[in-house]
Amino acid sequence: MKMRIEKDSMGELDVPEEALYGAQTQRAINNFPISGEALPDAFIRSLILIKAAAARANETLKCLSPDIAKAIQDACNELLNDDNFMRHFPVDVFQTGSGTSSNMNANEVIATLASVYHGAPVNPNDHVNYGQSSNDVIPSAIHVSATLELTGHLLPALVHLRQTIIEKGDSLKGFTKTGRTHLMDAMPVRLDQTFHAWAAQLQDNIDNLMYLESKTTQLAQGGTAVGTGINAHPEFAALFAKELSDLTKVTFTQGKNFFALIGSQDTAVALSGQLKAVAVTYMKIANDLRWMNSGPLAGLGEISLQALQPGSSIMPGKVNPVIPEATAMVAAQVIGNDAAITIGGQSGNFELNVMLPMIAKNLLNSIKLLANSGRLLADNAIATLSVNEGKLNEALHRNPILVTALNPIIGYEKAAEIAKKAYKEGRPVVDVAEENTELSREELLVLLDPAKLTHGGI
Amino acid sequence: MKMRIEKDSMGELDVPEEALYGAQTQRAINNFPISGEALPDAFIRSLILIKAAAARANETLKCLSPDIAKAIQDACNELLNDDNFMRHFPVDVFQTGSGTSSNMNANEVIATLASVYHGAPVNPNDHVNYGQSSNDVIPSAIHVSATLELTGHLLPALVHLRQTIIEKGDSLKGFTKTGRTHLMDAMPVRLDQTFHAWAAQLQDNIDNLMYLESKTTQLAQGGTAVGTGINAHPEFAALFAKELSDLTKVTFTQGKNFFALIGSQDTAVALSGQLKAVAVTYMKIANDLRWMNSGPLAGLGEISLQALQPGSSIMPGKVNPVIPEATAMVAAQVIGNDAAITIGGQSGNFELNVMLPMIAKNLLNSIKLLANSGRLLADNAIATLSVNEGKLNEALHRNPILVTALNPIIGYEKAAEIAKKAYKEGRPVVDVAEENTELSREELLVLLDPAKLTHGGI
Amino acid sequence: MKMRIEKDSMGELDVPEEALYGAQTQRAINNFPISGEALPDAFIRSLILIKAAAARANETLKCLSPDIAKAIQDACNELLNDDNFMRHFPVDVFQTGSGTSSNMNANEVIATLASVYHGAPVNPNDHVNYGQSSNDVIPSAIHVSATLELTGHLLPALVHLRQTIIEKGDSLKGFTKTGRTHLMDAMPVRLDQTFHAWAAQLQDNIDNLMYLESKTTQLAQGGTAVGTGINAHPEFAALFAKELSDLTKVTFTQGKNFFALIGSQDTAVALSGQLKAVAVTYMKIANDLRWMNSGPLAGLGEISLQALQPGSSIMPGKVNPVIPEATAMVAAQVIGNDAAITIGGQSGNFELNVMLPMIAKNLLNSIKLLANSGRLLADNAIATLSVNEGKLNEALHRNPILVTALNPIIGYEKAAEIAKKAYKEGRPVVDVAEENTELSREELLVLLDPAKLTHGGI
Amino acid sequence: MKMRIEKDSMGELDVPEEALYGAQTQRAINNFPISGEALPDAFIRSLILIKAAAARANETLKCLSPDIAKAIQDACNELLNDDNFMRHFPVDVFQTGSGTSSNMNANEVIATLASVYHGAPVNPNDHVNYGQSSNDVIPSAIHVSATLELTGHLLPALVHLRQTIIEKGDSLKGFTKTGRTHLMDAMPVRLDQTFHAWAAQLQDNIDNLMYLESKTTQLAQGGTAVGTGINAHPEFAALFAKELSDLTKVTFTQGKNFFALIGSQDTAVALSGQLKAVAVTYMKIANDLRWMNSGPLAGLGEISLQALQPGSSIMPGKVNPVIPEATAMVAAQVIGNDAAITIGGQSGNFELNVMLPMIAKNLLNSIKLLANSGRLLADNAIATLSVNEGKLNEALHRNPILVTALNPIIGYEKAAEIAKKAYKEGRPVVDVAEENTELSREELLVLLDPAKLTHGGI
Repeated sequence: MKMRIEKDSMGELDVPEEALYGAQTQRAINNFPISGEALPDAFIRSLILIKAAAARANETLKCLSPDIAKAIQDACNELLNDDNFMRHFPVDVFQTGSGTSSNMNANEVIATLASVYHGAPVNPNDHVNYGQSSNDVIPSAIHVSATLELTGHLLPALVHLRQTIIEKGDSLKGFTKTGRTHLMDAMPVRLDQTFHAWAAQLQDNIDNLMYLESKTTQLAQGGTAVGTGINAHPEFAALFAKELSDLTKVTFTQGKNFFALIGSQDTAVALSGQLKAVAVTYMKIANDLRWMNSGPLAGLGEISLQALQPGSSIMPGKVNPVIPEATAMVAAQVIGNDAAITIGGQSGNFELNVMLPMIAKNLLNSIKLLANSGRLLADNAIATLSVNEGKLNEALHRNPILVTALNPIIGYEKAAEIAKKAYKEGRPVVDVAEENTELSREELLVLLDPAKLTHGGI
Repeated sequence: MKMRIEKDSMGELDVPEEALYGAQTQRAINNFPISGEALPDAFIRSLILIKAAAARANETLKCLSPDIAKAIQDACNELLNDDNFMRHFPVDVFQTGSGTSSNMNANEVIATLASVYHGAPVNPNDHVNYGQSSNDVIPSAIHVSATLELTGHLLPALVHLRQTIIEKGDSLKGFTKTGRTHLMDAMPVRLDQTFHAWAAQLQDNIDNLMYLESKTTQLAQGGTAVGTGINAHPEFAALFAKELSDLTKVTFTQGKNFFALIGSQDTAVALSGQLKAVAVTYMKIANDLRWMNSGPLAGLGEISLQALQPGSSIMPGKVNPVIPEATAMVAAQVIGNDAAITIGGQSGNFELNVMLPMIAKNLLNSIKLLANSGRLLADNAIATLSVNEGKLNEALHRNPILVTALNPIIGYEKAAEIAKKAYKEGRPVVDVAEENTELSREELLVLLDPAKLTHGGI
Repeated sequence: MKMRIEKDSMGELDVPEEALYGAQTQRAINNFPISGEALPDAFIRSLILIKAAAARANETLKCLSPDIAKAIQDACNELLNDDNFMRHFPVDVFQTGSGTSSNMNANEVIATLASVYHGAPVNPNDHVNYGQSSNDVIPSAIHVSATLELTGHLLPALVHLRQTIIEKGDSLKGFTKTGRTHLMDAMPVRLDQTFHAWAAQLQDNIDNLMYLESKTTQLAQGGTAVGTGINAHPEFAALFAKELSDLTKVTFTQGKNFFALIGSQDTAVALSGQLKAVAVTYMKIANDLRWMNSGPLAGLGEISLQALQPGSSIMPGKVNPVIPEATAMVAAQVIGNDAAITIGGQSGNFELNVMLPMIAKNLLNSIKLLANSGRLLADNAIATLSVNEGKLNEALHRNPILVTALNPIIGYEKAAEIAKKAYKEGRPVVDVAEENTELSREELLVLLDPAKLTHGGI
Repeated sequence: MKMRIEKDSMGELDVPEEALYGAQTQRAINNFPISGEALPDAFIRSLILIKAAAARANETLKCLSPDIAKAIQDACNELLNDDNFMRHFPVDVFQTGSGTSSNMNANEVIATLASVYHGAPVNPNDHVNYGQSSNDVIPSAIHVSATLELTGHLLPALVHLRQTIIEKGDSLKGFTKTGRTHLMDAMPVRLDQTFHAWAAQLQDNIDNLMYLESKTTQLAQGGTAVGTGINAHPEFAALFAKELSDLTKVTFTQGKNFFALIGSQDTAVALSGQLKAVAVTYMKIANDLRWMNSGPLAGLGEISLQALQPGSSIMPGKVNPVIPEATAMVAAQVIGNDAAITIGGQSGNFELNVMLPMIAKNLLNSIKLLANSGRLLADNAIATLSVNEGKLNEALHRNPILVTALNPIIGYEKAAEIAKKAYKEGRPVVDVAEENTELSREELLVLLDPAKLTHGGI
């Protein structure tokens, strides 16, 4: 590889000829050969958006000349419009805890491109980073990228999943099945009730995430090095938020307390905790689907998920519930990511949290995994499953637990006797109830009708 | 121990003569000698409140006679008014996953007492549990107890802690100290800024918890066995919520989807995730306090926490930051509790989550620990600490990083040279800056004044 | 409550008349009203054993007079022989991070009793705590109590559970059932193979725990305040280990590096990680049992667990798999405890870890929960379950996946065609295979015999 | 992109012209657009090694012709010798829970290359996958890749880190500093004692990992679909282990119970628990380094870590402890990975765990992160740090806690008085002790000499 020589405040070093970045990025590449994994694109894009918005604000505040500010914005636009530039952001996730190396990476790449537009040197620190510090840029980039990914990906995916579930559920109103509590036969439910329960779970998660956006849209930007805003124009923070809102069409605001936003990552921790709750919801839905689909002969066999691929390298004809499985693995990963973020959130001392890149990576990974698997779950599992009505009906009417409906008339203890007898003798509960109560067969057939017994649910 | 014989639908067994509970509680005692730990009082009290509210609603709906309903309420009041009754609720946390044993424990104890008031047998299942199932009672009790503990204990404690921090912070406005990022000397901050940052973190947590109360006040009650509300009066759920609100002076509502509230524990998971976020905030505050207090000679020595007890069994005169340490251990425990609840939240299949008692215990434990340690942190650490001004000032003016303030004038690179020279030669930065810039000493003394450099913060 | 006045190096305070403890314990009671939970008995007992062994060693080394050493040992014996003394150890788990308050609690209680035996004052610090520091006593008590609880409770419980599983499994050799991978019908297995798999999982856990005992038996005792052994006789550590081994009949040794054993809790973290692995194994066994037991009509219905209690407060006749559920909740709790311990393990700075009491509590809780639930799982679930052979056989022979056995003869693709046809037409696979291969019915009946197909397993 | 048409048992689909894989891989690519992340190279390489070893064993057992077996081995060698082939293994981590898609990916790619060598079609299922199932291949690949990464990377890195610490520590024997417990000044320690403590912690971790290799070298291979070994030659498992040992120069063995190794991931869970323990050790070392390095003026300032890059985009001259920070982030990530693996370990039902690819990814990621950051910590932090002796000495002799050494002579209470007086009056402890005891200044200077007070440590 052809190299050129670059220089920073610590001296000279070799940088690849074709790299848009400079000395500090290269130092980071040399210093951190750890995971081989760069920060997510969504994070880098937010970093660039921040630089563009900062340039606009600094221009208005006369902290940057219009020419330089324009060149910086042009550079940012160029980077945002072509994913190929992502290879110029190679710094490892596991780097300095402030993410300074990634901030300088952005400063350097933008400065290189802006210098071309400008026709004269644009300085990474004095121009691109004007009125900023990694310590407010990186926390802001975490909030901005999380907000944009929530708004642009996860929330639409959750809404789509919820809507798909509701529509599918509505189409299954006619199916009644034996409910299960403790995995044991319980009172009957309708399939639409099962599906609407999942939809209700998703709605709570959507509500909670939308609430938390009122926190993620608050930015540290303007606090600079330690929260006091040293070197930023006094009006920078507010104007920056306005410019960024303008660029992203999402309303961001100046944070209420810069020190808190720089010294802690509480909102990331809270958001991750809620993403974990989404994961738990996914796990429930995925497991219900997997078990309803189990069989086809030796399982519950209540539904059939769409066959998407051969299920086994050795067992011919096998088809597995691969989308729910992938979803469940996503849930596990999101729970793991949350554990990492929790540790990260604890790692603030005094004026700075120093696990920022690790938090960024895990938070954005959780959002992406939940968004992508949520869409697959909707489109390739929920929407396309079919119901095996025969299997649902097998046990439905014989279920001794239906006797529960007689409690108000004959009391729990008497009802228990009837249920036990029905189990023991393997007979339909209606027959045993007829023998053991004053109720007529006609009355019992009405009282013990599984479909009727599902009417009360909301 | 003298025993009496009791009977349930499975047969007879021995119960202690003096026990207010009956056969099913005793079976649970026999079946689950696991942890030796009963469910928290706060949970049992909510269970009793639910039984009282249910009796009132069932009376209005003519499902229970006024006499029996009254007897049940009197029994509940008696139990709520005397903590000594708690020994009649001995069922282990690790029991049936639905908490049926604890529900029956409440039904049995209340039935025993109510029978005395009523002068005739009140039945645990047919009367006390009328229109209810463990499957809606226990999830409701989790939401009710969590809400009451939040409202009555944790939120007031957090508000008190925040207020104490603000007041203490305001009293420390005059103190400027060297800020620290990456634990390394950075730009100066004032002590009130440090304290207000903690207060801002707490305010976010308070906001988030208050938001989540809009979820915890939604109840499964009325869904009965599987969510369909079988055996409950159609108007029971709404009326129950009204009666419970009346009893507790907190507004509870009928849940929007019973199936979701019975089959999952998503709100508990979300709430626990947020309690974990509070824990992370506590950890930050506790660690900042511990480090500022470190020394007195070989540490940072910036503050002195109140001496509460001899610190060592071997090192005489030692005093340790015991309240922040206890607080940090609380934080660790709450994080652990959250991990348990997360696993619990995943353990719903079909119509019922079956880790309810474990979830209840951990959730209420987290709330209690955070409430109690939060108060101690406020009253015995924050409020009573003193500042060692001499120590703060030692490094303040000499700090080469103050040169940051010159960036807009001389540029980052030039500033870096000055800082490095000051470090290397161990000289005050103002002296080195005077030699290496065009700025006069007077200008520099103004530009590099630590106290002035803290003015921008919000 | 009647009070007396006590005094320590910080001054005087009120102590309950009847309390055996003194001023420092009382300070801790006053300082830490947090959880209301004392440290586990197993921990307190180990603390007392350590004091007894220390007295013996110090006597031999002539650091304590024979009289005082004897009085201390007598006091320790008295405490160890009567559980009622546990109420004299009320200090909250959430206290000073070193556990100094609990160490002083033991020193004070023992000094009080020893003074009676001795007929003259025995000093808590200068005699009972001679040559010790909380900083070596508490880490030692964690290792000692964990070792004794492992040896005395968890390992025997695991061995018993494994043995019960093997015996039960051997008795079920005759039962063949449809195997399930991805919950979908797969090749057949025998019930003894299922059970022996669980036993093998337990054996690995037993091996791993026994290995870790080689670490938990290494003690910090002798390192005193910071690891240098200040104030302890140079031969104390080795002699102490010998005396403690003598008292407990378990071989403890002087740690290889006191600084590591005081400054970190790595062995507790490693042990807890392994206890978490046991929890994961329990979860697998509990879930397999719950699902095999599911039904009886609308589930898998392969086995019937013993009925231990009525399963529902509303659904008469319902019986639930309560022991596997309790076991699964234990697993969740142990995973949560491990998360807390992991945070605790990180909380060492320099010469001392300061989350010791929290670590002790969670570690011993995990061991206890796993031991107690393991025994219940063995005796009240595994040993007493029965098999529903009819249900096992329903799908066994018709399972199209049996065609896998023909792969080596007809190839995967041809076999897949046959399986798909059998599924589609709902016909026994042998019929479809007969039509679509060169193989005779006789050959096919041998090749596709489910019982024969299970022979290869180890 | 130019496409070709491929076919599997479910029909035809488009595959990129240049792809070495076939229809099933392509289905997986289409089905799982979730994370965009493929399984780690180390996993794919182990998969290929398994295929090579299986071909050798099947040849010996006459299950494959020598020609085909040779062609498969040649294909495997080609793949192992050129990292560019990795792009032919693009299947997402979040796929079918068994990893069947990755197994088929390997089967297809190897079959394509082997067909060229062989000059006739080699079949992915009937030849490359002969006597195998994803259900034994993927668990085996997890064990094999974990073992090889442990042996080849993590253990050497830990040994190197430990050795570097010991050597550095030995070079620092001359430095005595104030010990810290609870972050508060305690008795003195020497720097070599601090370093040797870390080395001892690492040694325990090395021991524990080496022990666990006795579990990871046991393989599921030979159990095929459900553990019964259907379609594998009876001698395959043992011979396979021998061939793989031969290929890798690491001794692998046939697992003791195939059902356990396929149905659970207990060893992965146990190993991950131990990797988490390594992470906790790293966190301790990283934090100790960061704090000792803190300052330089307003921190502890005991050591200076090597300057590796400019520390701030805004604060000129700032240098941060970037390697310890990266290490601490690694620790957080490993703890998160462990949480994901723990959830994964629970997700076995009956004959198969179905979170295998997720477990593989997290386990190998943890090993890699710990190995790479461990080496950096050794070479760029430990080896290159320097000690600031002046700072160490500042507080050393004045520390009132030194009075501890007088306990055996004057008793704890008297010593406490002296310490308190020294603190209060800010005087050297020796002066205060001289006034308040019978001891002469000469005796006191000997008794209170910090360096001497460190002698007892091991």
